[in-house]
Amino acid sequence: GFAKLDHHRKLRSGFGEVIYCSGKSMDHLVKIFLNFDEKGVDVLGTRATREQYEKVKEMIPDAEYDEIARIIRIQRTNHEKKGLIAVCTGGTSDIPVAEEAAQTAEFFGSNVIRIYDVGVAGIHRLLSKIGAIQEANCIIAVAGMEGALPGVIAGMVDKPVIAVPTSVGYGSNFGGLSSLLTMLNSCAEGIAVVNIDNGFGAAYLGTQINRLTEGNHGE
Amino acid sequence: GFAKLDHHRKLRSGFGEVIYCSGKSMDHLVKIFLNFDEKGVDVLGTRATREQYEKVKEMIPDAEYDEIARIIRIQRTNHEKKGLIAVCTGGTSDIPVAEEAAQTAEFFGSNVIRIYDVGVAGIHRLLSKIGAIQEANCIIAVAGMEGALPGVIAGMVDKPVIAVPTSVGYGSNFGGLSSLLTMLNSCAEGIAVVNIDNGFGAAYLGTQINRLTEGNHGE
Amino acid sequence: GFAKLDHHRKLRSGFGEVIYCSGKSMDHLVKIFLNFDEKGVDVLGTRATREQYEKVKEMIPDAEYDEIARIIRIQRTNHEKKGLIAVCTGGTSDIPVAEEAAQTAEFFGSNVIRIYDVGVAGIHRLLSKIGAIQEANCIIAVAGMEGALPGVIAGMVDKPVIAVPTSVGYGSNFGGLSSLLTMLNSCAEGIAVVNIDNGFGAAYLGTQINRLTEGNHGE
Amino acid sequence: GFAKLDHHRKLRSGFGEVIYCSGKSMDHLVKIFLNFDEKGVDVLGTRATREQYEKVKEMIPDAEYDEIARIIRIQRTNHEKKGLIAVCTGGTSDIPVAEEAAQTAEFFGSNVIRIYDVGVAGIHRLLSKIGAIQEANCIIAVAGMEGALPGVIAGMVDKPVIAVPTSVGYGSNFGGLSSLLTMLNSCAEGIAVVNIDNGFGAAYLGTQINRLTEGNHGE
Amino acid sequence: GFAKLDHHRKLRSGFGEVIYCSGKSMDHLVKIFLNFDEKGVDVLGTRATREQYEKVKEMIPDAEYDEIARIIRIQRTNHEKKGLIAVCTGGTSDIPVAEEAAQTAEFFGSNVIRIYDVGVAGIHRLLSKIGAIQEANCIIAVAGMEGALPGVIAGMVDKPVIAVPTSVGYGSNFGGLSSLLTMLNSCAEGIAVVNIDNGFGAAYLGTQINRLTEGNHGE
Amino acid sequence: GFAKLDHHRKLRSGFGEVIYCSGKSMDHLVKIFLNFDEKGVDVLGTRATREQYEKVKEMIPDAEYDEIARIIRIQRTNHEKKGLIAVCTGGTSDIPVAEEAAQTAEFFGSNVIRIYDVGVAGIHRLLSKIGAIQEANCIIAVAGMEGALPGVIAGMVDKPVIAVPTSVGYGSNFGGLSSLLTMLNSCAEGIAVVNIDNGFGAAYLGTQINRLTEGNHGE
Amino acid sequence: GFAKLDHHRKLRSGFGEVIYCSGKSMDHLVKIFLNFDEKGVDVLGTRATREQYEKVKEMIPDAEYDEIARIIRIQRTNHEKKGLIAVCTGGTSDIPVAEEAAQTAEFFGSNVIRIYDVGVAGIHRLLSKIGAIQEANCIIAVAGMEGALPGVIAGMVDKPVIAVPTSVGYGSNFGGLSSLLTMLNSCAEGIAVVNIDNGFGAAYLGTQINRLTEGNHGE
Amino acid sequence: GFAKLDHHRKLRSGFGEVIYCSGKSMDHLVKIFLNFDEKGVDVLGTRATREQYEKVKEMIPDAEYDEIARIIRIQRTNHEKKGLIAVCTGGTSDIPVAEEAAQTAEFFGSNVIRIYDVGVAGIHRLLSKIGAIQEANCIIAVAGMEGALPGVIAGMVDKPVIAVPTSVGYGSNFGGLSSLLTMLNSCAEGIAVVNIDNGFGAAYLGTQINRLTEGNHGE
Ligand SMILES: Nc1ncnc2c1ncn2[C@@H]1O[C@H](COP(=O)(O)O)[C@@H](O)[C@H]1O
Ligand SMILES: Nc1ncnc2c1ncn2[C@@H]1O[C@H](COP(=O)(O)O)[C@@H](O)[C@H]1O
Ligand SMILES: Nc1ncnc2c1ncn2[C@@H]1O[C@H](COP(=O)(O)O)[C@@H](O)[C@H]1O
Ligand SMILES: Nc1ncnc2c1ncn2[C@@H]1O[C@H](COP(=O)(O)O)[C@@H](O)[C@H]1O
Ligand SMILES: [Mg+2]
Ligand SMILES: [Mg+2]
Ligand SMILES: [Mg+2]
Ligand SMILES: [Mg+2]
Ligand SMILES: [Mg+2]
Ligand SMILES: [Mg+2]
Ligand SMILES: [Mg+2]
Ligand SMILES: [Mg+2]
Repeated sequence: GFAKLDHHRKLRSGFGEVIYCSGKSMDHLVKIFLNFDEKGVDVLGTRATREQYEKVKEMIPDAEYDEIARIIRIQRTNHEKKGLIAVCTGGTSDIPVAEEAAQTAEFFGSNVIRIYDVGVAGIHRLLSKIGAIQEANCIIAVAGMEGALPGVIAGMVDKPVIAVPTSVGYGSNFGGLSSLLTMLNSCAEGIAVVNIDNGFGAAYLGTQINRLTEGNHGE
Repeated sequence: GFAKLDHHRKLRSGFGEVIYCSGKSMDHLVKIFLNFDEKGVDVLGTRATREQYEKVKEMIPDAEYDEIARIIRIQRTNHEKKGLIAVCTGGTSDIPVAEEAAQTAEFFGSNVIRIYDVGVAGIHRLLSKIGAIQEANCIIAVAGMEGALPGVIAGMVDKPVIAVPTSVGYGSNFGGLSSLLTMLNSCAEGIAVVNIDNGFGAAYLGTQINRLTEGNHGE
Repeated sequence: GFAKLDHHRKLRSGFGEVIYCSGKSMDHLVKIFLNFDEKGVDVLGTRATREQYEKVKEMIPDAEYDEIARIIRIQRTNHEKKGLIAVCTGGTSDIPVAEEAAQTAEFFGSNVIRIYDVGVAGIHRLLSKIGAIQEANCIIAVAGMEGALPGVIAGMVDKPVIAVPTSVGYGSNFGGLSSLLTMLNSCAEGIAVVNIDNGFGAAYLGTQINRLTEGNHGE
Repeated sequence: GFAKLDHHRKLRSGFGEVIYCSGKSMDHLVKIFLNFDEKGVDVLGTRATREQYEKVKEMIPDAEYDEIARIIRIQRTNHEKKGLIAVCTGGTSDIPVAEEAAQTAEFFGSNVIRIYDVGVAGIHRLLSKIGAIQEANCIIAVAGMEGALPGVIAGMVDKPVIAVPTSVGYGSNFGGLSSLLTMLNSCAEGIAVVNIDNGFGAAYLGTQINRLTEGNHGE
Repeated sequence: GFAKLDHHRKLRSGFGEVIYCSGKSMDHLVKIFLNFDEKGVDVLGTRATREQYEKVKEMIPDAEYDEIARIIRIQRTNHEKKGLIAVCTGGTSDIPVAEEAAQTAEFFGSNVIRIYDVGVAGIHRLLSKIGAIQEANCIIAVAGMEGALPGVIAGMVDKPVIAVPTSVGYGSNFGGLSSLLTMLNSCAEGIAVVNIDNGFGAAYLGTQINRLTEGNHGE
Repeated sequence: GFAKLDHHRKLRSGFGEVIYCSGKSMDHLVKIFLNFDEKGVDVLGTRATREQYEKVKEMIPDAEYDEIARIIRIQRTNHEKKGLIAVCTGGTSDIPVAEEAAQTAEFFGSNVIRIYDVGVAGIHRLLSKIGAIQEANCIIAVAGMEGALPGVIAGMVDKPVIAVPTSVGYGSNFGGLSSLLTMLNSCAEGIAVVNIDNGFGAAYLGTQINRLTEGNHGE
Repeated sequence: GFAKLDHHRKLRSGFGEVIYCSGKSMDHLVKIFLNFDEKGVDVLGTRATREQYEKVKEMIPDAEYDEIARIIRIQRTNHEKKGLIAVCTGGTSDIPVAEEAAQTAEFFGSNVIRIYDVGVAGIHRLLSKIGAIQEANCIIAVAGMEGALPGVIAGMVDKPVIAVPTSVGYGSNFGGLSSLLTMLNSCAEGIAVVNIDNGFGAAYLGTQINRLTEGNHGE
Repeated sequence: GFAKLDHHRKLRSGFGEVIYCSGKSMDHLVKIFLNFDEKGVDVLGTRATREQYEKVKEMIPDAEYDEIARIIRIQRTNHEKKGLIAVCTGGTSDIPVAEEAAQTAEFFGSNVIRIYDVGVAGIHRLLSKIGAIQEANCIIAVAGMEGALPGVIAGMVDKPVIAVPTSVGYGSNFGGLSSLLTMLNSCAEGIAVVNIDNGFGAAYLGTQINRLTEGNHGE
């Protein structure tokens, strides 16, 4: 049967479930949260509005909300965090996407170091932090506008760099297209690109790599 | 100084150098090959024409050429290969890009298993190979046209899947755009996208992950 | 004259009329509904807001509304449904478009089986339903994000698969472009693509095929 | 096992195999043809160059070639053709794509009527043929440049119209994009769009529909 | 001096001024209207909101507003209208753009015949009106979605057809791109394309042609 | 019947036929030329290669060829030319498209004045010619790269300006897209845009307008 | 250290700081303003809403706001302005972007002359101002829609022209794409393009050039 | 008259003429070269093939050719060079465009320093050269693929950076689009973008700025 397949693909086994809240009706959303909550697993809700959170909190009082990351979290278990992922941003406007990544990675059991606002237009900011970045098992580099940060970092470390383009910018940014193309075309080696604004996806991939490094292959 | 940076970023340290041959003048190319050859390091030339190869062979007789992968290889050392990367393709037309990836990964010291022509339009082909794919530390999934292969694989394994869109197709494929977008928008978790036809980049990233897994952090 | 042409093109002859409500002024819309209602034919209104529905209901009390499908229905006659169309979705967010398709197909006299949330990122979900899907005369496969569902289904059945890309997704999804291109470039055979979010068009096409199969050629 | 799946998806069962010749190496191509030929099945090669044909003919003397359709055909069996598909084009430059469709449909056992050069810029040409078109179980409408033909036909018949955009045109045609978009956005009902220049895909879909109509469900 | 240039370019000389109201601040807009009004010339305001109209009306009581065309009109003079322009639409949703064209053309002194909802998906509607269309000196054909109307009309008359793509549609319509490309790529002869939704521009061009025909060369 | 339609749409009635030579097979092309030639009508072949011309000349010795315009012309009759069309270009590289327009307009019986290389980057060149341009009944303005010429001319004359974008340029010109968009978005009034490089279409439209002006309504 | 780098890159040294207000939370924004204000430097806030301004004004009473330019300014010092920058626009809708440029340039110590609404569709307007424009050390030319203004100006002066495309327009303007492409493809020499609507960036670049000219190299 | 305008716009006055050779016929090209040569002015031909050069050399024996820059140069006068422009590239494949820029700038009388292959994927290379770069009056930064170089340089100097995107790259580079968008969206200040591969345009703009700095305002 395919149960085996299903079992194998669960990174989050023992780490809780993730709900993509965007566009879900209030009724539907609350039902899903309650469902998971009854099973006692930890639950993370991404792309959640404050309004959604408040409804969930009515039913599950120890639900927490992070305004910046737009994340609802119900944490019951307490796993020891392992390894290290560095989450970097080019500017301050990229922080919401970075926090979605950072908090998701923490939820999945990774230690995270945040290094924000180190965009390449003021390269000294990045250079002064490069030592800390080199400690991580992998780097999540979040950038909008020209999106050059992942390429510069990838040239300075030899760990995988997960590049997250953001839709931050205006005009010929075309909703994140400019930073997406920059990252795909980087001449630096070791760059893994995910969708525009996809902090969650970067965190998932980062956790997979971080765990592999720590000899924890998903069990 | 920055020598430290430079040292740190070299995955290939002890594994040889890689030359991107496309668009280089014959003179320039031969000079670079001779230069590395004199240092005794292994050398890989990607996107090489047969014509370029023949010129290089005149100077370095034990240079080898792979017509499909368009790779020139000068292998002097003999490192033991480690870990395992699975390289999969959707169709047979994707094989040149897959071979660029596979041979580059081998050059960098990874064991590689090739699983070709398992595109999702005949899903039973993929299902019958999924056991072998699950053995690998990471998967390089190469696909043109609709590019759905990486997403389906990522749903069946819990290792990072490196997605390589190819320019194989016609019409609204728009030079690989269709498969690129498919991969970026996959709802499966754990997908790292690289540029269209970028087999080399996938292999570099795959080797980084494979080595991290094997506890061999670039030394 | 051209009356003959006009007569021939009416699939819905004897099945009622369909009104595209989006962007129509309240006055205009109500007038059209009343007009058809007076003739005693069944009427379906697609892309209708609740506000539009309520205005229509004031005049025609037995009008019904489906919030998800955004459909107003006035059903007076009771045709026996024929044949079978399978309506499948990749995710739960695609359900509104799928319901527009399913309810339209039912309105036109087709039996419909709904198989939702069987996206290819968890292929076992689809595999466990494939028997039911193979019973249908044609399949309407609705998917956003990477849009790979129709291609995988088309590889497992030998009936026409009507592929409906949805605008579900974000970032490089570009309003449904990514799933549209995926479907147009599928290497599976037997895929008919319609416009992004066009559940109605898929249902019309599906009903034509379903009726042809059932030996009911539009009369 | 999956053999059942595989069996179910074969429209061509008993009708022969189709090889996509474009980009295949001479060696590889000849081997595939010989392989099928030994099994005694009929074989169709699409997108074949005359050079490829001549090589195939050396080995299989009764291979035939159609210059316009770029099709190699090895026909051994003689099935009775069923039903009727109308293949229409807007202009004479669309004929190669139309012939790929028509000859593929015939290979799969459908009767085909060709109605070429009836583009909407001279609508009387189409109107004078509409009677013949209405006889078919489905219509394949092939058009480049503005691609309006399928929409006009779909308004005059109540059978599925398979719309094939071609790359015929220049300037803002952008390689077939203009006709592709026209067809996807048609306000006529009952239009199934395939990829630009994909005569083969249209024929496969058309044959599925034609057979369903004729009560011949793939056996 | 350049006064001569300026004088020569005024089609509207003696016909009044046109103000593009969209995006103008209330203050600024009212000032411009008052300015022209004081000179006693007729004034037309396009793309005007009802709110803008009400503010203008406070100052200039005989200002009139057309909700559909979004036009404010202050008509003092009474020129005899000349010639004939036919304004046609594919659907009813295109009427706002068509009315902008029709009312602008009337303001500039052209007789206008309106022939709406004659889209090519039901070609008999157009065919039954073709006699009336052929009477005009030029035709303004307004269409969204697939935008095929101008091409079909241009094939039936030998007068210039001014093609106005509209942004009516959804999905792969991409804000009017699909109908724009259709019109630019039409194989019919005698088609002049203007910007998406640009009813005003079509009317200006149409009036120039209509006047030339009537031997009234701008004086 | 529709014969009336057909008759009405022929601008060229009494002026000869036009053949679009691009992509036609030699056999097919020669047959079409001979066919028209036998009827004694004048014939124009556009987008013709020298090779095509030479084949035609073998059969019809008084065929002439213009290398720049890529036009084959067989002129037997001698109509008096009427009215005036000005054909302008921005640069010298736009001349082939302009000559296609100019020679087609002459073939259809219009007087033509050529005013080349008056691009807006050196506006004095245009200003010194504006008197001549103002004499024409309409202007065909041909420009590549930024394509600003039609807009500047339209601001200085009050006759219709037919704007022909060319594919001249490189980089972000994207095959003529930049000049096409410029022309569609011009804020000058009275601009009719045709497809990229479509000199023929501009000439046809220009002749329609020129004849209307001269009181010669297609008879 | 990199402090030297940092110091060197500050054009604004001694001229105050610039805050990009768009998307910043109220709290965060006020904190930044207070921070700079305490240091006694002048501060400019771009892309500021009136709401943001009012909050800032509560804390820093001598903050000023320009509604059109959407700029908050706190000016304490009084530098003598130097050199001259001409800021031109094609239309009145481009003025907000032009004012962002003009007020930023003044903030950085440049004299500015404003020459608005001199678009190329009425070229005499520009010609009558060209003398004044030629006095400047560089020109900032702001234009939406077809964006032809910078090219025409660059043909008439021999100073650098900084071209600012705006998103003013509709339809095939595609959010400023049309004017951006026009400017990049201009055949006039000496044009420097910045992002769509980027008045700030143009002013910064203009000030650099203006200061270089005035022998004031950033110290 | 406008002669004054013309005179004012000539940067090259006293420096010779520039001919854009691409696409010019041999005859036409030689005639232009001879024409300028007779006047004794220096001449530069850009985008010239070796074949074009050889034809020119037959007539003008002291014509020189640079294979990399594709430049023909006829230098008779000997102006002292002034100021300093730094020309930098990201990779070695960008050198042809950089040499077009460098040699054009030298032809116009600027001193040039070349700093090649300092792309941001190995940032230490750029950092070690930053001192030299800071000496220049302006920087021309040439880069393909992700095009991040200009942004990083602009963050380290306070002189204008002229950004030249190149078409170097493959896949989602889309002919230079990725580097163009990167440069337009850079968050560094003081970046002037020119067209893809437009080394000539960058040199012209750079020379204008360099001369302004050196107090040599075009006379
Ligand atoms: N922010 C996000 N972006 C993309 N995918 C997400 C995000 N958050 C959660 N997901 C995925 O969506 C799945 C849940 O989807 P659903 O079943 O619709 O709630 C999770 O298991 C994740 O795979
Ligand atoms: N012209 C064509 N366009 C698209 N797909 C084709 C075409 N011709 C054949 N095919 C498909 O390609 C398959 C064979 O692919 P291959 O195994 O690469 O020869 C056939 O079974 C068809 O499904
Ligand atoms: N309107 C603007 N457009 C683009 N960049 C701007 C704008 N205004 C300010 N900036 C830049 O943004 C920087 C401030 O960004 P932040 O630190 O996020 O406030 C300034 O130093 C400028 O470089
Ligand atoms: N490589 C180039 N790219 C863009 N424009 C160029 C180039 N080389 C020369 N030009 C421009 O083209 C003009 C000559 O054009 P033409 O009159 O066609 O020879 C020169 O005066 C330059 O303004
Ligand atoms: Mg910052
Ligand atoms: Mg295969
Ligand atoms: Mg789900
Ligand atoms: Mg024809
Ligand atoms: Mg209608
Ligand atoms: Mg010129
Ligand atoms: Mg104005
Ligand atoms: Mg290098």
